[in-house]
Amino acid sequence: MAATSTLLDGKGLSKAMEADLKVRVEKIIAQTGKVPVLATILVGNDPSSEVYVKMKGNACERVGMTSVRVHLPEETTTEELLAAIEKLNNDEQICGILLQHPVPHQIDERACFDKIAIDKDVDGVTCLGFGRMSMNEPAYGSATPAGIMELLKHYKLPLAGKHAVVVGRSPILGKPVAMMLLNENATVTICHSKTDNLPALIKQADIVVGAVGRPEFIRAEWIKDGAVVVDAGYHKGGLGDVEISKVKDRAAAYTPVPGGVGPMTIATLIAQTVASAEKKLKA
Amino acid sequence: MAATSTLLDGKGLSKAMEADLKVRVEKIIAQTGKVPVLATILVGNDPSSEVYVKMKGNACERVGMTSVRVHLPEETTTEELLAAIEKLNNDEQICGILLQHPVPHQIDERACFDKIAIDKDVDGVTCLGFGRMSMNEPAYGSATPAGIMELLKHYKLPLAGKHAVVVGRSPILGKPVAMMLLNENATVTICHSKTDNLPALIKQADIVVGAVGRPEFIRAEWIKDGAVVVDAGYHKGGLGDVEISKVKDRAAAYTPVPGGVGPMTIATLIAQTVASAEKKLKA
Repeated sequence: MAATSTLLDGKGLSKAMEADLKVRVEKIIAQTGKVPVLATILVGNDPSSEVYVKMKGNACERVGMTSVRVHLPEETTTEELLAAIEKLNNDEQICGILLQHPVPHQIDERACFDKIAIDKDVDGVTCLGFGRMSMNEPAYGSATPAGIMELLKHYKLPLAGKHAVVVGRSPILGKPVAMMLLNENATVTICHSKTDNLPALIKQADIVVGAVGRPEFIRAEWIKDGAVVVDAGYHKGGLGDVEISKVKDRAAAYTPVPGGVGPMTIATLIAQTVASAEKKLKA
Repeated sequence: MAATSTLLDGKGLSKAMEADLKVRVEKIIAQTGKVPVLATILVGNDPSSEVYVKMKGNACERVGMTSVRVHLPEETTTEELLAAIEKLNNDEQICGILLQHPVPHQIDERACFDKIAIDKDVDGVTCLGFGRMSMNEPAYGSATPAGIMELLKHYKLPLAGKHAVVVGRSPILGKPVAMMLLNENATVTICHSKTDNLPALIKQADIVVGAVGRPEFIRAEWIKDGAVVVDAGYHKGGLGDVEISKVKDRAAAYTPVPGGVGPMTIATLIAQTVASAEKKLKA
């Protein structure tokens, strides 16, 4: 049992990031007279999605940016959503576009994600952005995985040569975090619902990333002593994807739920919007 | 020792594919009066690259297509190459564009790859194509990995739930083959030059993909009995990336060098060009 288990304080780091971002936003406004704007798009009335969009809007305000909220009805078609995105793409005031996932079933979410102009894809959801990030080309990373990487780097946790096991392969979490860890020279194993003998694979991990979307699916006993545990899940009752309470004392480091990955996701979205604003408004 | 080791005959399969492609090309010509064209771009005078481009042009001829060869001098600039690609993008007769890798050092190869229009990227080298393929969206796959997948599927080798270990992480080989195997429900580990304890990781592999670019770097004794061994390397003297002669008798299946992955790469390029022609010329 390591007495030195480090809590990876996403809440604290995100606050520090916001303080820095606030200064950068003030500078942008002073130099250009323009206030950076993030457009958020919510389709339908899913209560969780409403909360997430609101939290992102609030974060914009905290750093001195404006958020424009586009709220479309549940019955919106793909064509209507594409048109709404195109309008935002062409609006010079908009520095970033967030399309809240998931959208209602009748909508082709992938087509809508990919409609977002690459230079406004501050949430990192486009195929092009994923491809560019994977190839180490400049791109806004998918917000949750990019937030995870920021947290790992902030705590100077070694990644090169480490064996990272990512559990989950979703387009905006498992796949991008795997490529980001690979680009930091980790050896990366990607596991998923079809994986045989998941416990034995996780047991090898120096770094475990839970990105599976099922409450406490990853059992504490599968994780070796001294591993770094990153939990990207969030479920009712404050549970993550990892049985974290039973493993945190013997982990080298771990993200709490809540207060770990969640706040980093929002801070990363905001940071990438500010970066976009610095390029767009100063240009 | 398994007496049933299967030689994955890329040479034979590529010939069968070409026979099928020839029929499809005849149909395109009969229906449209147009002959599909692949544009090949060679920059400089690297003898190996000249051979590869020539082989690809010959394959076009064998299936009844035309290839237009663009040969630019060693001192070509990025801007000049981008302009040459743009011209081919805008040429309605051209169904596919192959930019032979590698280009001379002064050229930004990534910018040039990404200049290729997605609908003509039949060699699968763009970031956008990689992103789309990774997300299971329609895209021409990177030719070598797509050829490997075709070969594995032809021999009906099970992939779902199998542990594939990819050694190498290049943009047109290691990274895309990892994502393709993942999308076929394999559990995928990506190893590279910074990986610790490579032999132990390879030992776990049900499927090993050698994509490291060093002659016989992957030792026979690292590979477990009954594994599927895919060797994407080709080096002087007919050596691959895997010490294949010492492992082939106890592998479940293996690709020979030469005659395994190499011919599949070219056949895939041609197949993707024909698929593009079917879309473009019939439209």
